[in-house]
Amino acid sequence: MNVAALKKLLEGVRDKKTGIDEALHELKALPFEDLEFATLDTHRALRQGFPEVIFGQGKTFPQIKAITRSMLTRKENVLITRCDPEKGKALKKAFPRASYNATARTIFIKSHEIIEAGRGTVLVVCAGTSDVPVAEEAAITAECMGNRVERLYDVGVAGLHRILHRKKDLWAANVLVVVAGMEGALPSVVAGLVSRPVIAVPTSVGYGANLGGITTLLAMLNSCAAGVSVVNIDNGFGAGVAASLINRE
Amino acid sequence: MNVAALKKLLEGVRDKKTGIDEALHELKALPFEDLEFATLDTHRALRQGFPEVIFGQGKTFPQIKAITRSMLTRKENVLITRCDPEKGKALKKAFPRASYNATARTIFIKSHEIIEAGRGTVLVVCAGTSDVPVAEEAAITAECMGNRVERLYDVGVAGLHRILHRKKDLWAANVLVVVAGMEGALPSVVAGLVSRPVIAVPTSVGYGANLGGITTLLAMLNSCAAGVSVVNIDNGFGAGVAASLINRE
Amino acid sequence: MNVAALKKLLEGVRDKKTGIDEALHELKALPFEDLEFATLDTHRALRQGFPEVIFGQGKTFPQIKAITRSMLTRKENVLITRCDPEKGKALKKAFPRASYNATARTIFIKSHEIIEAGRGTVLVVCAGTSDVPVAEEAAITAECMGNRVERLYDVGVAGLHRILHRKKDLWAANVLVVVAGMEGALPSVVAGLVSRPVIAVPTSVGYGANLGGITTLLAMLNSCAAGVSVVNIDNGFGAGVAASLINRE
Amino acid sequence: MNVAALKKLLEGVRDKKTGIDEALHELKALPFEDLEFATLDTHRALRQGFPEVIFGQGKTFPQIKAITRSMLTRKENVLITRCDPEKGKALKKAFPRASYNATARTIFIKSHEIIEAGRGTVLVVCAGTSDVPVAEEAAITAECMGNRVERLYDVGVAGLHRILHRKKDLWAANVLVVVAGMEGALPSVVAGLVSRPVIAVPTSVGYGANLGGITTLLAMLNSCAAGVSVVNIDNGFGAGVAASLINRE
Amino acid sequence: MNVAALKKLLEGVRDKKTGIDEALHELKALPFEDLEFATLDTHRALRQGFPEVIFGQGKTFPQIKAITRSMLTRKENVLITRCDPEKGKALKKAFPRASYNATARTIFIKSHEIIEAGRGTVLVVCAGTSDVPVAEEAAITAECMGNRVERLYDVGVAGLHRILHRKKDLWAANVLVVVAGMEGALPSVVAGLVSRPVIAVPTSVGYGANLGGITTLLAMLNSCAAGVSVVNIDNGFGAGVAASLINRE
Amino acid sequence: MNVAALKKLLEGVRDKKTGIDEALHELKALPFEDLEFATLDTHRALRQGFPEVIFGQGKTFPQIKAITRSMLTRKENVLITRCDPEKGKALKKAFPRASYNATARTIFIKSHEIIEAGRGTVLVVCAGTSDVPVAEEAAITAECMGNRVERLYDVGVAGLHRILHRKKDLWAANVLVVVAGMEGALPSVVAGLVSRPVIAVPTSVGYGANLGGITTLLAMLNSCAAGVSVVNIDNGFGAGVAASLINRE
Amino acid sequence: MNVAALKKLLEGVRDKKTGIDEALHELKALPFEDLEFATLDTHRALRQGFPEVIFGQGKTFPQIKAITRSMLTRKENVLITRCDPEKGKALKKAFPRASYNATARTIFIKSHEIIEAGRGTVLVVCAGTSDVPVAEEAAITAECMGNRVERLYDVGVAGLHRILHRKKDLWAANVLVVVAGMEGALPSVVAGLVSRPVIAVPTSVGYGANLGGITTLLAMLNSCAAGVSVVNIDNGFGAGVAASLINRE
Amino acid sequence: MNVAALKKLLEGVRDKKTGIDEALHELKALPFEDLEFATLDTHRALRQGFPEVIFGQGKTFPQIKAITRSMLTRKENVLITRCDPEKGKALKKAFPRASYNATARTIFIKSHEIIEAGRGTVLVVCAGTSDVPVAEEAAITAECMGNRVERLYDVGVAGLHRILHRKKDLWAANVLVVVAGMEGALPSVVAGLVSRPVIAVPTSVGYGANLGGITTLLAMLNSCAAGVSVVNIDNGFGAGVAASLINRE
Repeated sequence: MNVAALKKLLEGVRDKKTGIDEALHELKALPFEDLEFATLDTHRALRQGFPEVIFGQGKTFPQIKAITRSMLTRKENVLITRCDPEKGKALKKAFPRASYNATARTIFIKSHEIIEAGRGTVLVVCAGTSDVPVAEEAAITAECMGNRVERLYDVGVAGLHRILHRKKDLWAANVLVVVAGMEGALPSVVAGLVSRPVIAVPTSVGYGANLGGITTLLAMLNSCAAGVSVVNIDNGFGAGVAASLINRE
Repeated sequence: MNVAALKKLLEGVRDKKTGIDEALHELKALPFEDLEFATLDTHRALRQGFPEVIFGQGKTFPQIKAITRSMLTRKENVLITRCDPEKGKALKKAFPRASYNATARTIFIKSHEIIEAGRGTVLVVCAGTSDVPVAEEAAITAECMGNRVERLYDVGVAGLHRILHRKKDLWAANVLVVVAGMEGALPSVVAGLVSRPVIAVPTSVGYGANLGGITTLLAMLNSCAAGVSVVNIDNGFGAGVAASLINRE
Repeated sequence: MNVAALKKLLEGVRDKKTGIDEALHELKALPFEDLEFATLDTHRALRQGFPEVIFGQGKTFPQIKAITRSMLTRKENVLITRCDPEKGKALKKAFPRASYNATARTIFIKSHEIIEAGRGTVLVVCAGTSDVPVAEEAAITAECMGNRVERLYDVGVAGLHRILHRKKDLWAANVLVVVAGMEGALPSVVAGLVSRPVIAVPTSVGYGANLGGITTLLAMLNSCAAGVSVVNIDNGFGAGVAASLINRE
Repeated sequence: MNVAALKKLLEGVRDKKTGIDEALHELKALPFEDLEFATLDTHRALRQGFPEVIFGQGKTFPQIKAITRSMLTRKENVLITRCDPEKGKALKKAFPRASYNATARTIFIKSHEIIEAGRGTVLVVCAGTSDVPVAEEAAITAECMGNRVERLYDVGVAGLHRILHRKKDLWAANVLVVVAGMEGALPSVVAGLVSRPVIAVPTSVGYGANLGGITTLLAMLNSCAAGVSVVNIDNGFGAGVAASLINRE
Repeated sequence: MNVAALKKLLEGVRDKKTGIDEALHELKALPFEDLEFATLDTHRALRQGFPEVIFGQGKTFPQIKAITRSMLTRKENVLITRCDPEKGKALKKAFPRASYNATARTIFIKSHEIIEAGRGTVLVVCAGTSDVPVAEEAAITAECMGNRVERLYDVGVAGLHRILHRKKDLWAANVLVVVAGMEGALPSVVAGLVSRPVIAVPTSVGYGANLGGITTLLAMLNSCAAGVSVVNIDNGFGAGVAASLINRE
Repeated sequence: MNVAALKKLLEGVRDKKTGIDEALHELKALPFEDLEFATLDTHRALRQGFPEVIFGQGKTFPQIKAITRSMLTRKENVLITRCDPEKGKALKKAFPRASYNATARTIFIKSHEIIEAGRGTVLVVCAGTSDVPVAEEAAITAECMGNRVERLYDVGVAGLHRILHRKKDLWAANVLVVVAGMEGALPSVVAGLVSRPVIAVPTSVGYGANLGGITTLLAMLNSCAAGVSVVNIDNGFGAGVAASLINRE
Repeated sequence: MNVAALKKLLEGVRDKKTGIDEALHELKALPFEDLEFATLDTHRALRQGFPEVIFGQGKTFPQIKAITRSMLTRKENVLITRCDPEKGKALKKAFPRASYNATARTIFIKSHEIIEAGRGTVLVVCAGTSDVPVAEEAAITAECMGNRVERLYDVGVAGLHRILHRKKDLWAANVLVVVAGMEGALPSVVAGLVSRPVIAVPTSVGYGANLGGITTLLAMLNSCAAGVSVVNIDNGFGAGVAASLINRE
Repeated sequence: MNVAALKKLLEGVRDKKTGIDEALHELKALPFEDLEFATLDTHRALRQGFPEVIFGQGKTFPQIKAITRSMLTRKENVLITRCDPEKGKALKKAFPRASYNATARTIFIKSHEIIEAGRGTVLVVCAGTSDVPVAEEAAITAECMGNRVERLYDVGVAGLHRILHRKKDLWAANVLVVVAGMEGALPSVVAGLVSRPVIAVPTSVGYGANLGGITTLLAMLNSCAAGVSVVNIDNGFGAGVAASLINRE
């Protein structure tokens, strides 16, 4: 029930076309419908230049295709994450406008121009070449959400000069997403060099006592540099969304 | 070595007052001194209205007193976190201007007015009364860093109406810090209701399979609501800093 | 030895057709046979409308076929869980009456009508589409055990309006099975809205720090809503049985 | 806003004492207040013979006293759990009607007679004498919630005859709460002997590889007997509530 | 119901003094009483020279005193384990015959001479001086159960010559209990030198990544020497019992 | 250097055929060769009816074949464990006398009759049909080591009557190996019924919170029945060896 | 900018060919370039007989080929680790000089003779045949870095005479790398026999409670022999580098 | 039996003063006595300037006093680690020559001058002031073992300029011990700047997801800089010994 319908109901009561009991009955369902509006407000906010996003992992090709189709009818941009090459190929065939990013394993289907919405630049930093897929997922997510994105890859802490060499790029960013595996030291080092928010993304890169990224995750949560917050292992998408929310005007 | 000194050195070379070898020797130490300047830039940025912060846990009273004294000579505001009542009392005696917050276990010593620096409001939300100390640490940290802070406490998910009743407060915030123990569901629920960044803080409140907050931490990292990022268990201070960095103009 | 046989033995003693020693010898084995009766009593209770159940995982097709055949000779309904498509196909061929549910990965072979045995409705709720297979296993198990089952799927806490919109369905249920992966917040939210027993089922849906469902399991055990009890990860069958036992008259 | 107030508002509209816009403004806050009613419905249901419950652990004596006082003004029965002897003594002094159970560490303050609400008996079973405090917490919770409660203590599986000897008590129960530490085998054995719901409660009794009850918890979740559901370690209160919800008419 | 009573019942039936229904009713309880006899058989076996044992940890002094008193009336030897010095002192006062072993934290009260029951010697080996309390608990348990016990202490693997020097003692034993903390290597080394059963006991001696003995426990379970079996952390008593069962004739 | 050779050396010295220095040089290597004898003593003991054993897992077919061949030249019986069907087939082809047990995944090649060496019977008990492979590995290992072995399978605790029905078999055994997955309760129940040593073997049977057998392992280590000792997950071989060592005269 | 270039710049300033501002501009980038020199110093040190190393795991054949090609142009020796047979074959085809070690899964391409750089011998010891691949990775890494390497394989602690027999080899080494799986006892035993540094390498060899090498890792970190330090699970390469750094003159 | 005694025995045989059997009997014990010599060789090596070390934790004051006294009679230097202030005071009273280091919690009693034994400098680096006690334990251990030790404290990675500023100190060291808590990033950064062996020591400094140092430990084991090896949590002593062994000529 929207406000117009609510107004109409009240007018019916005023005009005695609608009985008190009948109106009470109608109003019983109100909270949740109204809440739904509230949520739609949220959604509208989210949709300002933001694409709809489908988490592709664990979904079959027909499932993804059906959801995509339904989204495109609403003229929305569609971003599909965790999309393996096989599904990527099939989706490109089904939606010729789709562009597949093999590194990030994402599909993007543009229905309209992306509206630039960020205050500044989102800088995605990563430690090693094996962290690039997760970094790219973050970068593409942020781009699709209307942000200017810069990339600074392969600057792990075992060769400090690499990151120090690029300190201007670090200082130029409004939000930083820092992706690393192994001992996960990079976010601490980066956060010590900048005064902007740092989102740390642990990756499952490593072996043995890396425990599939758990070690990296725990290390990042224990960062000695205050102001670092952390998302789930390999969750480039989540970091991209968090960075976009921070960067929004 | 600052730029003026560097210029002077080069002028000495040009004017042949300084030999090449002597200059080379001077320049050998340059990278690190220069870097130090870079870092000072960072520090200057951080200091714009930001207090110096001392992590009180594990430090003795004399240690804290000495560091505080040295900081106050630089006319900085000083924030001491993880400060138990006994130390709090002793520090209040040593620094009569100090104000002790028993809930947050923080001491604040104001040397100058806090400069308001935030774009909007930082809203600190917490699930239960046992989470309040951590929430207050976050709130006071953000306040000391120049942010307007609102509080919304005791709104856990087992009684949804409590949080829904305050949806306008949620929508009014620029950044949200959401503090919860036990199953850690509150950040997911809050993030589903707003379109601003949410920093989740797990607390060690709970028992048995709560594992000292590890369960809550892991649950928050698995939030079904994108855009949530997480700090360490009971780390109200870290969340306050992260929120401040996000909220800065 | 059943009660009839025992009675006959005693009559033999009374009628002096059976000597004391012979009777003592017969009775020596009694405890365990009698216990078996005890257990059979239990079984009879369980069988009131309850099918026999085979846990298909880790059993070969010939093993399942043999057990099924032996069960059908006792004219029982047979439910096979954790049955992958290949085995499902083979079993359908072997037992033409069998119906395979591809989502729940269950086979049901009806020997007689299911006797309705529940006091009210079992409501199976799930958070996301990936949780549906586990939810369906619970639902089908409860149905086969003689319960009226309602389903309420894809109502995760990141969009609260979805669950609030269906509060009447929640209130109408006698027992609720709530299935969720990731941060496992749904059972807490549901239990806060109803006054009936809630069985929580964690699923292994998620990634990274989800730890194959362990995070979800631990979070549910730490639910801030009293009255929630939990079964093993992905254990839809166990939840269906627990709900059936609760719902029985 | 309750239904009476809502009706009054509508009557104001009908009688033109209240303008449409004014009414709309009033109704804007409705969803959440109305939801509150929904929740109050739940609460009312919960309150049918149910006491208010205060989780005493981590709360100071003044805090508990204040909450208790406020509750007693509403003429409710009050149950305080996790209340150590010192607090128990202080509370008994403050509320002379209070009765303290030293084993269960609970305080009960009766404002009115408990209304019997259960369909049958709640049987609380425990394995060893060290599990008794948790078992008693469950038993007292269920009693305060209007259930007839029976106790069957010290019947661990290392001496099977103890539990087998009492099979009639097991069979007579409508719901069973089974409390055990160490290897946690008792719920499996009990669930194999009955056809009613079993709530398993792991305790932190044990040492070494017991891991503070985690081992027992995990073992119970892996019970080979279907229909067992589990609550958190040492959570006698939660088991008492779950059993009460199941036992309610 | 023992065999004599059963015979009497059958004679009653034969002589028509007892009706069939009455007899059936009597026999209903039979399984468990009979089982109780079975269990008593077990107990009798266990009691051949074996003391009654009380696990003192978590029990109050009055509780232990009461249980002890009741046991002594049956003229049994009593062994109390995990008995701290304070309780030890109090028990010695209450039972003047009691002897307290401060290292093993055990109390032994002799009602009759211990009957030697072992086939050979139980050798208790330990790695470091910190492991001695657990080793002594094992040794005293085995002694109280009628075994000849030898001790071989402080022979850790970092100084191999110590254990090699005593190889004759190792070869002379019928069962070996090997107690170690830290990396838990001693059972593997000992088992490689003998051809008799080795019971490994991990202790919680160590720090950091020792995890309270879990590391040692896991290492022992992964012993490269076949034939090693393991008991819980610090469980000297359990090892003593296992060794006694193995050593019995 | 064996004793004969040592004697010969000394005789050479006595007879002045061997110089002191030459003898000293020979004796320098003695410690370790002598130790080797010590070990050979052990080995001889182990070999009394014991086969040589090859752990097949992780070894290639050519590796296993080569080791087997070298062993057979010493006329020993050979037991190969963890041998998958493919390798089994290849080995049977290479060694026609070999017999492959598909359930236990073992190969046995008899060079001579097995010498019966045990004092009594080794009883291998298992809880469910999925535990049979591990139980069979234990049984076959014990058989190959000269023990009479009885089997008691599919007697899990959820149907107590099954194990109680076979109590005579339990009482007849000299050593018991109890194999179980899931909650691992069977060893506790069995150990409560007998007065002989019980070796518990956890299996990796289960799912979710079973953690690949870790839950079962931990539960068994926390057995409330004293005298149970535990081997590694799925380690049927280790249990068979431990049982054999216990059962040896 | 290297020192020569820096000198040239200063000479330009002195000779007034370069203006102060121009020089300042050039020097702005200095810190990092200079730091790079620092790093190059390190690299130069590392390169004294040290090969360039590529971690092959997770890299595609084309990626490895490209990196290798670029390295060979600098006339460096190239070592590729974690290189499976398929990639090994392809690389051998692409670089005919390459030699593939199937056990260690390494490729070595010699551009120039390896310069011997070590003070003494690196001894690589391993416990079982399954640990050989990791041991070989360590050995080959150390050899490629200019060390004399000795090997002592299959000397696990369950047969102590094997390691004692070779004590002279142990004593002759300057650094020892000790590789073991399962209970990881070998480094403790070895470190007790020598007075040189011991690098322990846990392997993922084992099953069940071995937890993929975590048990071995934790056991080694708890070694009772001081002076043992540990690298990651299966990290033969890291141990080889650590040993080389220790052994360098 | 030493070589002289052995020679004498052989001479006795040659001279027929000692019978063959008598000699054989004497030689039976040889391996282990001889081994003891071997071990004494090791000990002699270890003792070259090395003190005897007592691990004070878990030992009572009388125990430590007794061991110390016995050591001093051999005119050895004595180092006692993990010695709390109370014991420190008591020991200083008992041994007036003793010097107590309150930060490192060590006691050193000098019997003779420490013999300088190292090739170069051991540099002990630590990240934060809370890590100093562990760093000091390492430093004092290395000093007592005859090394020149330098300290570089409070140079954590969140302020990179601090460590970079001291790169000459890093380059001057022969071995580096790097102590850190929290995310444990410092060893990776340091190892990237030097070409000498780095021993990493995780400390239990941190909170929440630090898990008592486990997170730091795991992170260090996953260091992206090759050549780092790790000791147990807070094990400054072990690191000092490892560094000393590496630094020895």
